[in-house]
Amino acid sequence: MNKSFYGENVFIENAAAEMIYNKVKDLPIIDYHCHLQPKEIFEDKPFDNIGEIWLGGDHYKWRLMRSVGIDEEYITGSASWKEKFMKYAEAIELSLGNPLYHWSHMELKQFFGINEPLTSENAEEIWDKANTVIKETSMSPRKLIADSNVEYIATTDDIIDTLEYHKLIAEDESIAAKVCPSFRTDNLFLYTADGYKEYIQKLSECSGIEVVDLTSLKTALKNRVEFFVSMGCKMTDVGIERFPEYIGSDAEADSSFKKALSGELLTEKEYDAFISNLYVFLGDLYKKYKLVMQLHLAVKRNASTKLFEKLGRDVGGDCVGNPIKASSITALLDKMEMEDKLPDTIVYTLNPTVYYEIATGIRSFRNVSLGAAWWFCDNLSGIKKQIEVYSETAAIGTFYGMLTDSRSFLSYARHDYFRRILSSALGVAVENGEFAPAESAVKIAEKICYYNIKDKLEE
Amino acid sequence: MNKSFYGENVFIENAAAEMIYNKVKDLPIIDYHCHLQPKEIFEDKPFDNIGEIWLGGDHYKWRLMRSVGIDEEYITGSASWKEKFMKYAEAIELSLGNPLYHWSHMELKQFFGINEPLTSENAEEIWDKANTVIKETSMSPRKLIADSNVEYIATTDDIIDTLEYHKLIAEDESIAAKVCPSFRTDNLFLYTADGYKEYIQKLSECSGIEVVDLTSLKTALKNRVEFFVSMGCKMTDVGIERFPEYIGSDAEADSSFKKALSGELLTEKEYDAFISNLYVFLGDLYKKYKLVMQLHLAVKRNASTKLFEKLGRDVGGDCVGNPIKASSITALLDKMEMEDKLPDTIVYTLNPTVYYEIATGIRSFRNVSLGAAWWFCDNLSGIKKQIEVYSETAAIGTFYGMLTDSRSFLSYARHDYFRRILSSALGVAVENGEFAPAESAVKIAEKICYYNIKDKLEE
Amino acid sequence: MNKSFYGENVFIENAAAEMIYNKVKDLPIIDYHCHLQPKEIFEDKPFDNIGEIWLGGDHYKWRLMRSVGIDEEYITGSASWKEKFMKYAEAIELSLGNPLYHWSHMELKQFFGINEPLTSENAEEIWDKANTVIKETSMSPRKLIADSNVEYIATTDDIIDTLEYHKLIAEDESIAAKVCPSFRTDNLFLYTADGYKEYIQKLSECSGIEVVDLTSLKTALKNRVEFFVSMGCKMTDVGIERFPEYIGSDAEADSSFKKALSGELLTEKEYDAFISNLYVFLGDLYKKYKLVMQLHLAVKRNASTKLFEKLGRDVGGDCVGNPIKASSITALLDKMEMEDKLPDTIVYTLNPTVYYEIATGIRSFRNVSLGAAWWFCDNLSGIKKQIEVYSETAAIGTFYGMLTDSRSFLSYARHDYFRRILSSALGVAVENGEFAPAESAVKIAEKICYYNIKDKLEE
Repeated sequence: MNKSFYGENVFIENAAAEMIYNKVKDLPIIDYHCHLQPKEIFEDKPFDNIGEIWLGGDHYKWRLMRSVGIDEEYITGSASWKEKFMKYAEAIELSLGNPLYHWSHMELKQFFGINEPLTSENAEEIWDKANTVIKETSMSPRKLIADSNVEYIATTDDIIDTLEYHKLIAEDESIAAKVCPSFRTDNLFLYTADGYKEYIQKLSECSGIEVVDLTSLKTALKNRVEFFVSMGCKMTDVGIERFPEYIGSDAEADSSFKKALSGELLTEKEYDAFISNLYVFLGDLYKKYKLVMQLHLAVKRNASTKLFEKLGRDVGGDCVGNPIKASSITALLDKMEMEDKLPDTIVYTLNPTVYYEIATGIRSFRNVSLGAAWWFCDNLSGIKKQIEVYSETAAIGTFYGMLTDSRSFLSYARHDYFRRILSSALGVAVENGEFAPAESAVKIAEKICYYNIKDKLEE
Repeated sequence: MNKSFYGENVFIENAAAEMIYNKVKDLPIIDYHCHLQPKEIFEDKPFDNIGEIWLGGDHYKWRLMRSVGIDEEYITGSASWKEKFMKYAEAIELSLGNPLYHWSHMELKQFFGINEPLTSENAEEIWDKANTVIKETSMSPRKLIADSNVEYIATTDDIIDTLEYHKLIAEDESIAAKVCPSFRTDNLFLYTADGYKEYIQKLSECSGIEVVDLTSLKTALKNRVEFFVSMGCKMTDVGIERFPEYIGSDAEADSSFKKALSGELLTEKEYDAFISNLYVFLGDLYKKYKLVMQLHLAVKRNASTKLFEKLGRDVGGDCVGNPIKASSITALLDKMEMEDKLPDTIVYTLNPTVYYEIATGIRSFRNVSLGAAWWFCDNLSGIKKQIEVYSETAAIGTFYGMLTDSRSFLSYARHDYFRRILSSALGVAVENGEFAPAESAVKIAEKICYYNIKDKLEE
Repeated sequence: MNKSFYGENVFIENAAAEMIYNKVKDLPIIDYHCHLQPKEIFEDKPFDNIGEIWLGGDHYKWRLMRSVGIDEEYITGSASWKEKFMKYAEAIELSLGNPLYHWSHMELKQFFGINEPLTSENAEEIWDKANTVIKETSMSPRKLIADSNVEYIATTDDIIDTLEYHKLIAEDESIAAKVCPSFRTDNLFLYTADGYKEYIQKLSECSGIEVVDLTSLKTALKNRVEFFVSMGCKMTDVGIERFPEYIGSDAEADSSFKKALSGELLTEKEYDAFISNLYVFLGDLYKKYKLVMQLHLAVKRNASTKLFEKLGRDVGGDCVGNPIKASSITALLDKMEMEDKLPDTIVYTLNPTVYYEIATGIRSFRNVSLGAAWWFCDNLSGIKKQIEVYSETAAIGTFYGMLTDSRSFLSYARHDYFRRILSSALGVAVENGEFAPAESAVKIAEKICYYNIKDKLEE
């Protein structure tokens, strides 16, 4: 069974899978967690060339290019977009099995009509072809969103964000997709970052609450949550390195927060007391406002100090973090549940080794479920693995499905990637005589690809 | 290769696998670790309906039902068996790939002659069909045991159990299967549980030894082991959350035990000293009496306090525990081996992430082997993985094979599940030209499915 | 698709894989990490029988034999080679899926022309056949090296080794393969081993530097590195149990080393300070001399004290170690990179559970890559897994490929094993329409099997 290169049935293993895929491939996309910039969506600046689109801010690609020894000049340096694109072609040619290989070729096909392998030999030709398409179609953020049949976008926004572009987008009827903010609390917890005091000062300003202690902080947070909710927010997120192993009282958290504000270093326990106390507080708020709590776990940021000092954050120096103990996670969820403060929650882990611990641990609570394969796990084997773990530890038909987590408007191809792999997993079970009828498998696929998250957002 | 729904060759990948499976499918079942109630076996009360059989005490199913949002009323509440069954059908329809989907349909086929997918649409019809079969065949515990060709059952019994039903079963010649107790020490170690002092008091009573310190405790334990042995016991078990990271002296263990008895909380080290010292002591006893030591590792119990407070233990709130360090396990086995107190041992891990550590660690000792895929790992991919790990780290032909670990008399279908998956793994190696002759693969399958554990029990 | 027993396409999944394999199968072997004895290569003593070759020093096989219950007499005891071989046949017959099954039969075919399964029934016949081949071909170390088309061998040598046999080999033009030493520092760090003081004394002698503190130690190490480099050394290695979680200053490391020399036990932190400081120092040296730093992580040695006391080291009592925290690894690499002391590095982990952590962590640094599946991971699923992890987290075309890590001259069959599995992984991607053109897959395979490491060694 020799398949053609990124042909109709790539990543699709059998006829039942193909049937299922054909039922879900055209469903609208609900991208309930991504890093698209609302400003870019609103301004809708046409793209110039594929080098810029692909290599402008994509640290996944930067990392891959470094791994084949390409000079930084051609990655984040001053080389031209064309030079960078040519170098990327050299890297991709060596990258069989890498998700970037898959994504790049799916994007070439879906958005540029180019269905051939990118190699160092034909890179120039593909550069020209792709750029011609960009020009001819006036490719721009909104155009890509519309062409990708995107119905809903949840961006990721700092809690002190003014959401002004969300406002502008909402008022612009020419934008078909609904674009809503997510309440992302990371910066609140990263107290050792430069400018933390100023950050809290800004929180004071935008909330109108002078934040000086835990009580005023909570009042300010309530204010911000309510503002985000008024702007259509349904999703929240946190993705810091540490997960608390200790749950702090108000007094402890208050003391930690004041210490943090004063610029002192917290002990691990003091830090845990601070963040855990706020997690519980926020859980309560999220529950009240029917927001979904997303926990992104087990990430390590900026492993290479040299890279960080040269280029800053989000440049390809992040990696999978040490395993989080599932017992810490269940302890926090348990605390929330006991106090009736546990919102609908999605837990993502970047470290796949703890899948079974986490998937079974969180399923001891009714409304907590395992999130899609995240970042370094978002690849062919990783998506399969996540679907397998979910299926074995809960009812796969309850899965909220795919999100892009991406900064790129071309990333919608990843929804197609996911739908193919999902359909394949389901189709294999059907043809193996392990599940029937096929219509039920279709129903499961439709729920995962669209309806589960849609229903949740409309709650 | 489109297979029919739970047809003859479900879970069987090729012709060699089918050939192997046909050789082992009718071998008697030796269920050397389960949670069946000897009382139920003896009393042999006929079943009333499939709702009761399936949902009466099966916390696997309860958990799945919760994960799809079914109200507790229909899970452990006062709804009728029929209502509960109807709700279970709704859950199962979404549960492609879940072991409960597999088991439920294998049970429907094997015990009820029903070979169609259970859906919310046909649930009523299947309810009727199944209940008709129950009535017509007077389905009861003993009938299911006999029909499943079960030769041997090792129940799991508290060390203070009187084993009266074992006695009655042994005296009843109409019961074909041999039903023997296992010596399960968990409650001895769970000193913070309600009524621990009373538990020790009962141990004193049934052993005739006033248990007040480590020495008297050991004497009492010896007495109980001997009583269990007199009742045909060959298997022992422990499955508490903690595994000791420190091995305690007699003096330390004595001190810990007295402190526990006095109702004080032990430090982690004190607790480790207590349990490790007894593990070594028990290892010695087990070795003397040729009992198999089973260690069930890496479980976390009652993650949801709310659920625990409402419904108690074993209700679906357990999960995979944090990884156990293999170095702790090997340290304990090493201590036993050095003192010539290491019995034949089977080590199970609920956390699959430590498979390689554990499988290689325990294989540094001659008579310690890896146990079957346990509980949350007891599913299609989990069984495959366990067979793979065992094969790669030792001689798969020495594996003791499947057990149900179940509270349900229908669970014997899981032996069939296992035999199919095992045969498939072996058959694939044969057809891939990686192993020959096929007869040797059959021999391996027969040993795993029956003879290895049979020989061990007859030692 | 029934394949013949270890036929042409064993471990090869499709036609594209076969095509790729045919392009790489005859490439020379560069065995850049093994434990062959240069003395044995130089002396080239002909072998006597297959029992001696297979069971003389192979603790992998000893371990397997123990796992099936064979008496130590027939493993490491005084039984004859023939008796031992007969017992090994009994073990192998039960070992479907074990890498020893695969290797043994690949070796039988490649080196002895025997293409049938070894069983207890035909063991005598195979014994005779194999020994006839040994005699007729005057099978010897050099003959096996030449027949296996080995171009380069990096042995593993203690830093105080005189490398006299390397000298003799280099002078002997009849030895086709280049045989170079690797700089292995384990014994420098195992300060609690018997005779550590004498070991340091020997280091003083061979370096001509009186080693009494950190400064003199470093001078001596520099001397030894330079000596090894003068002998053609390109590879270095360390494979101790512990990985430092703390990076020590010179003062701390000096203090630790003196304490170690005085026979005192170091605290964990003191030990970490000592080894981490030297790792950084050595990294600097390796970088200067363009040596590759190999880190072998997560091993536990001598788990069974009884076995260790009876037979010593390297006898089958080792196992997978507890997971190493990737954050410790990246911290050390980061320190080196910041000080411009990070050499080209290959990181191996014996514990597969940390693959994702490690593979992504080390890829935050340009010149650090994931090593081949090591030891307990060096089997069919383990090699596949390593290729998958590498592909997903970096460009697979940069992988340095296979090494034997072996004490046996027959182990070159493992390169064929690897090439088959690698070709299969690539071929599957090609036929699945996930990668093209096939020639690029061939190029990747050639780089991995030969050119990447060749280029590195010639740098």
